[in-house]
Amino acid sequence: MQELKDRILRDGIIKRGGVLRVDSFLNQQLDVGLIDRIGAEFAKEFGGSGATKILSIEASGIAIAFAMARVMGLPLVYAKKHASRNLSDDVYKSTVYSFTRMSNTDIYVSKEYISKDDKIIIIDDFLANGSALSGLVDIVNMAGAELIGCGVVIEKAFQGGGNALRERGIRVCSLAKIISMEDNDIVFE
Amino acid sequence: MQELKDRILRDGIIKRGGVLRVDSFLNQQLDVGLIDRIGAEFAKEFGGSGATKILSIEASGIAIAFAMARVMGLPLVYAKKHASRNLSDDVYKSTVYSFTRMSNTDIYVSKEYISKDDKIIIIDDFLANGSALSGLVDIVNMAGAELIGCGVVIEKAFQGGGNALRERGIRVCSLAKIISMEDNDIVFE
Repeated sequence: MQELKDRILRDGIIKRGGVLRVDSFLNQQLDVGLIDRIGAEFAKEFGGSGATKILSIEASGIAIAFAMARVMGLPLVYAKKHASRNLSDDVYKSTVYSFTRMSNTDIYVSKEYISKDDKIIIIDDFLANGSALSGLVDIVNMAGAELIGCGVVIEKAFQGGGNALRERGIRVCSLAKIISMEDNDIVFE
Repeated sequence: MQELKDRILRDGIIKRGGVLRVDSFLNQQLDVGLIDRIGAEFAKEFGGSGATKILSIEASGIAIAFAMARVMGLPLVYAKKHASRNLSDDVYKSTVYSFTRMSNTDIYVSKEYISKDDKIIIIDDFLANGSALSGLVDIVNMAGAELIGCGVVIEKAFQGGGNALRERGIRVCSLAKIISMEDNDIVFE
């Protein structure tokens, strides 16, 4: 998606340890028009797939998945990172490692919201080591639902998570695939 | 907002300790059409206010604030509940008590994203004791920005947070104001 790549080149900030900050437009301050267009791009990519639900994960996946879900007219479900009194007690649970937080987090989805009859598209902002997507794939599998594929806004391909998922036969669509961030230079595939 | 009240009566579940579960349509599984209409309702409520930005808080405020921000054509900023390597180090920080998690959480907004020239509308899903909104108001004040008002989807008025904010002169708009949940019976104002 050219507009997205241009925006990453303009406003993305490379930090030590392979971290790319895009919080000025994607995951703390949101350029709402851009995210609407990202949602439409995902909807086009997965159009005609027979999806019944979009699955994402709090927090930074939510707005992107919402923008897509509204174009497709589908419900959105997002995994929570905290047990809470306003959730069901009967949940699917997986564990993900956050690259930016450098710690493990349990994630939860109420069993009521994914069933074996569902066809799921997973949406998130970043794909680095693939841990968050793998955790969401686990939950889709626990529910016995069908996984249509995964859509991510930015894939840091050099961290290997995307290819590990593809090698498992999972369809992964990334709108901006970065193959290198060396010497402060962002290179797309 | 009548559609919202009808939906709360139909699908809301009262749990012990004054907890209202609406996660089947508002904050884990999202009825995207309803949330679009909630966003439009807030946009109507705060139309003509000269707002420059919407401020919300992860995770369950994000979709609602996004739905509003896209109608108003404004950027959305949301407070994070975790320090992270993909955030700026230069942040406004406040502390909020979560009623549903029964614990304190620090919240962060990068200083880059709110300035003294901004006019802010704060949006969240629930208003109970008012701690999350108070924390966001603190951040608006730290930035020297102007607070236009706060919009919440569901106010549990019997927990007092809304009136405490109103007594400070803050405009608070709630789309469904619950005055009692006794005997498993939800009563709106």
